[in-house]
Amino acid sequence: MIQTSPVATIARLREHVGQVVTLRGWAVHLRSSGKIRFVVLRDGTGIAQGVLIKGHLPEEDFAAFEELTLESSLTLTGRVKAEPRAPGGFELEVSGLQLIHIAQEYPIQPKEHGVGFLMDHRHLWLRSPRQQAILRVRDEVCRACRDFFHERDFVLIDTPILTPTACEGTTSLFETDYLGRGKAYLSQSGQLYLEAAAMALGRVYCFGPTFRAEKSKTRRHLTEFWMVEAEAAFYTLEDLLALTEELVSYIVARVLAHREEELALLERDTAPLKAVTKPFPRLSYTEAVARLKEQGMKMEWGEDFGGDEETLLSRMFAAPVIVHRYPRRAKAFYMEADPENPELALCVDMLAPEGYGEIIGGSQRVADLEVLLARLQEYGLPREPFEWYLDLRRYGSVPHSGFGLGIERTVAWLCGLKHVREAIPFPRLLDRLYP
Amino acid sequence: MIQTSPVATIARLREHVGQVVTLRGWAVHLRSSGKIRFVVLRDGTGIAQGVLIKGHLPEEDFAAFEELTLESSLTLTGRVKAEPRAPGGFELEVSGLQLIHIAQEYPIQPKEHGVGFLMDHRHLWLRSPRQQAILRVRDEVCRACRDFFHERDFVLIDTPILTPTACEGTTSLFETDYLGRGKAYLSQSGQLYLEAAAMALGRVYCFGPTFRAEKSKTRRHLTEFWMVEAEAAFYTLEDLLALTEELVSYIVARVLAHREEELALLERDTAPLKAVTKPFPRLSYTEAVARLKEQGMKMEWGEDFGGDEETLLSRMFAAPVIVHRYPRRAKAFYMEADPENPELALCVDMLAPEGYGEIIGGSQRVADLEVLLARLQEYGLPREPFEWYLDLRRYGSVPHSGFGLGIERTVAWLCGLKHVREAIPFPRLLDRLYP
Repeated sequence: MIQTSPVATIARLREHVGQVVTLRGWAVHLRSSGKIRFVVLRDGTGIAQGVLIKGHLPEEDFAAFEELTLESSLTLTGRVKAEPRAPGGFELEVSGLQLIHIAQEYPIQPKEHGVGFLMDHRHLWLRSPRQQAILRVRDEVCRACRDFFHERDFVLIDTPILTPTACEGTTSLFETDYLGRGKAYLSQSGQLYLEAAAMALGRVYCFGPTFRAEKSKTRRHLTEFWMVEAEAAFYTLEDLLALTEELVSYIVARVLAHREEELALLERDTAPLKAVTKPFPRLSYTEAVARLKEQGMKMEWGEDFGGDEETLLSRMFAAPVIVHRYPRRAKAFYMEADPENPELALCVDMLAPEGYGEIIGGSQRVADLEVLLARLQEYGLPREPFEWYLDLRRYGSVPHSGFGLGIERTVAWLCGLKHVREAIPFPRLLDRLYP
Repeated sequence: MIQTSPVATIARLREHVGQVVTLRGWAVHLRSSGKIRFVVLRDGTGIAQGVLIKGHLPEEDFAAFEELTLESSLTLTGRVKAEPRAPGGFELEVSGLQLIHIAQEYPIQPKEHGVGFLMDHRHLWLRSPRQQAILRVRDEVCRACRDFFHERDFVLIDTPILTPTACEGTTSLFETDYLGRGKAYLSQSGQLYLEAAAMALGRVYCFGPTFRAEKSKTRRHLTEFWMVEAEAAFYTLEDLLALTEELVSYIVARVLAHREEELALLERDTAPLKAVTKPFPRLSYTEAVARLKEQGMKMEWGEDFGGDEETLLSRMFAAPVIVHRYPRRAKAFYMEADPENPELALCVDMLAPEGYGEIIGGSQRVADLEVLLARLQEYGLPREPFEWYLDLRRYGSVPHSGFGLGIERTVAWLCGLKHVREAIPFPRLLDRLYP
């Protein structure tokens, strides 16, 4: 007999206590005890236990339990009961069980698997409670970023992925043939386009995938990753520092407020996240180098920070640390020089605490046409593909600044992950393009 | 003398009537009349008129007006006055004018330009009121989609752009070398990945750029376009039809409620948009063919609709029309067959009215492993790259459905644009990769 009771989701079971509902999902745990059978069901919104007592449901439905395997799909109908001892906190007194599909022997077992195996089975691994929790945190981070910018009158500008020019040099770019009309490159940043849009709309942001064809294999690198970038006309470096600080506090607060359950499942210690409050510590690059040297790091003023330096710096503070004014020569061509010391760029990196390293990079941009032309030469970049970008300095140039925040690194930090690969649904790495 | 009055944005001038504020922006109109000078300023949030009366501001500031050119950047300080006759509705009684940058002769003049010229200057064209209005509508459409899915417990899953497999055949794919380890293709759809995620999280959506290397040149095609796609476990075709109808009504209502000003600026007749109410007309493919034939279209049952057929169909109704159950052979391999007529696919296209054509395509997906294996063979597709996709039918397969909505076509329809190229900040077309 087909049950016609209303379909419910597990996340909303608390609204149905005492009622008969139907749940649809997958078996994640099966257990027998005398004349009682237990099915723990997941439906994507949570888990709930179904209790089958012989005689309380049709004999055929009770017998169907014996066919169930891990990850088989089924519907359970029954009365909802709050049961603090049950997984998920609710039980269903089952009055009907319909099999949908009996799963073959499920390859991911409740035991340790190597990460290679799990990555090969990423399409199934996503079903684990831990991976689901990470993806829900990611969803919240993305929504928080968008809400943050919308509330501050930034307009969404989707910048192109296929571009004729490289923003920061032509190495580490994926290239493709553009319909037989020349090469196109996959974007590493929407920044240059955002600058154009900022001159139209004042404050803008983009949020999309970016690509780096880097042959590096670290726990912080993906070849395809998502970045939210913002650009604002009339913003100076100081305005930018305040904006990045505000954004990161906002994201952390949102995740703590809305993803408590997921963080608990991930066994994330939330104390360090709760300690992320404004103002964030601010160091100039020069101060940061001094701090690193005090800690025994061997480095010279003028060198960019590597992974080790970032890790060490980011462990010195409870909140993310804002490092500003790096040596100009270590940075990209479009960064405005510090008027107080033209060796320095008006730029910022933000390093997440607990050793997570860089999550934000940004700068005030060169506003003057002649300076920008000189920079192209200095950096050995061709002028012609940048003509449109130069136009922004020909027609009502204004001081402006922008930054990008890496989503996977932010999610890895908030979730306490060792590697960014779990922070994106289907990671792309040096040796990983499947599934 | 540097003004220290608070900086305001034009959109929020109504909160400052009677106060002295500073506006920062670009000159879009300059006019002299006796001892009075007028500057119409845009700042990305709106336009406002500054009135300069000789003697009411420093002589030097008054003289600076003479240097101004179209699109020059400047700040204006003055008292805010509501003035219904002024562009934007507010005037500034200017007490200070600071030049920031004098623009060279601006290439886009208030006259007719060819579309090629405007596209070459897309980075500047964005500054026009019309382009700004379109981009604000686009922002609203994107936010509406995300809010819609979030409110309905769909989780955001960012699907990969770099993929080893083609979803709907290998033609019209951009390809790239993946770090010397083989080819990767730019995704045309996140669907297959969403299906995997739906088995984990129940209801999921993705929202990102997609790519078609098509050498077609029509007013409805871009090589890079944005699509929001959703996939839900346990959804049948009927559930899907209801969901698409609900989404499109939601988007239209949001744009009407929040982008009235922009639609007015675009001279969009909103009557046809206000007529978009549920239920939408529903036609089977077979019924649609009969209607087209009645209208004199020469076509045979079994053929897919081309642009002309779509245009004609979409003009027959005030609301978007839902066309379901196309011949299976004209559609993709993963669509479930109609149990009542296996020649038909359980699929849907939604055509926007007023001749705008297809904005949504979706279907119920094949749930059975053996059927899907047979389909791969029938469509001449290799099995190996689809092994992970086949796994979804091995481990707890369930009925499920999904669809994708094209953002640029939706924006073009809502804004009443003739061509999708204006519906995206930096369009990519057969002959257009710059800027």
